Amino acid sequence: MDIEPQPGFRAFRDYRWDGVACLPYKQDASAPFKAISRQVLFAEPKLGCELRYFEMPAGGFSTLERHEHMHAVRSLRGRGHCRLGEQVRTVRPYDLVTIPSWTWHQFRATQGEPLGFLCMVNAVRDKPQLPSGQELAALRSNPAVAAFLAS
Amino acid sequence: MDIEPQPGFRAFRDYRWDGVACLPYKQDASAPFKAISRQVLFAEPKLGCELRYFEMPAGGFSTLERHEHMHAVRSLRGRGHCRLGEQVRTVRPYDLVTIPSWTWHQFRATQGEPLGFLCMVNAVRDKPQLPSGQELAALRSNPAVAAFLAS
Repeated sequence: MDIEPQPGFRAFRDYRWDGVACLPYKQDASAPFKAISRQVLFAEPKLGCELRYFEMPAGGFSTLERHEHMHAVRSLRGRGHCRLGEQVRTVRPYDLVTIPSWTWHQFRATQGEPLGFLCMVNAVRDKPQLPSGQELAALRSNPAVAAFLAS
Repeated sequence: MDIEPQPGFRAFRDYRWDGVACLPYKQDASAPFKAISRQVLFAEPKLGCELRYFEMPAGGFSTLERHEHMHAVRSLRGRGHCRLGEQVRTVRPYDLVTIPSWTWHQFRATQGEPLGFLCMVNAVRDKPQLPSGQELAALRSNPAVAAFLAS
C-alpha cells in the first residue's frame, strides 16, 4: 500500500488534529486566495471520498472557482459568507452547503473572526477552473455578488 | 435523476439540519443497539461517499459490528467511549476515529451526556456482521473490552 494507514484515534486540539499536517493552500500560483490553510483528515485508499478541513483568519477567502466535481461542505468554526452561483449567504457553525457541479463558489471570513469548514470531495476529481476577465465582469453584474467579491 | 438534489444551504439548529429527516437507526431487528438516531447530511449521486450524523442520549450505544467497508468518523457532540478492535478509548468532540475493514467497533455514551458523531462511508457498501456467541465470548476475554461492553 502506498498510503500509510491512519492510526485509529487522532485527538483534536484547537482546530488541529494529531498527526495531521496543516498546509498552506496553494494549488496554483495564479489562483487568487488569501491565508487559507488545509488539513486532510481522511484520505484512505478504500474510501471514495476525502475529508478536508479548510480554515482562514478574519479577512481570508478561498479561490473563486468552479469544476465538475461536487463539494459537500459542513462549516465548523466561526461565521462568514459563501457565494454559491447567484446566491450569497451567511454561513454559521455546522451549517451545510452543497456545491453542485460547475457552480462558481467562494468562502469569505467577513465577520471579523476565523472561518473553518469541512469539505467532503471525491478522491478522483478534475482540476478547478478560474473565471476569465469576461466571466468575472458578468459575475459582478449581480450587486450582491459584487459586494461580496469586494468585501 | 432519482435522488432529489439538495438545496444549496441548510441551516443547523440544535443538532438538527433543515430538510434532513432524523430517523431511528434500525437496520436489522436482530442488531442490538440503544436509542441511536441517524441523519443523512449528504447522499449525492455524484459523490462516492455519504456523510451521516449519529447521536445517542446518555447511556445509548451503537451496534457492535464489523464489515468490509471502512468508517471515517469525526465526533461532534459530547464525550463517550469507542471500542475499536482491542482498544477502548475516550472520544471527545472533534476527535477523529478511523475504523478499518473487518474491525469490531462500537460507540457508547458512557459519560452521562449525549454522544454524536459524523460518519463518512462509501455509498456502495456491504452489510455489517454481528458477533456470534463464540466471538462475543472471545471479545469479552479482554478486561477493558468486557468493562466497556458492560457499561
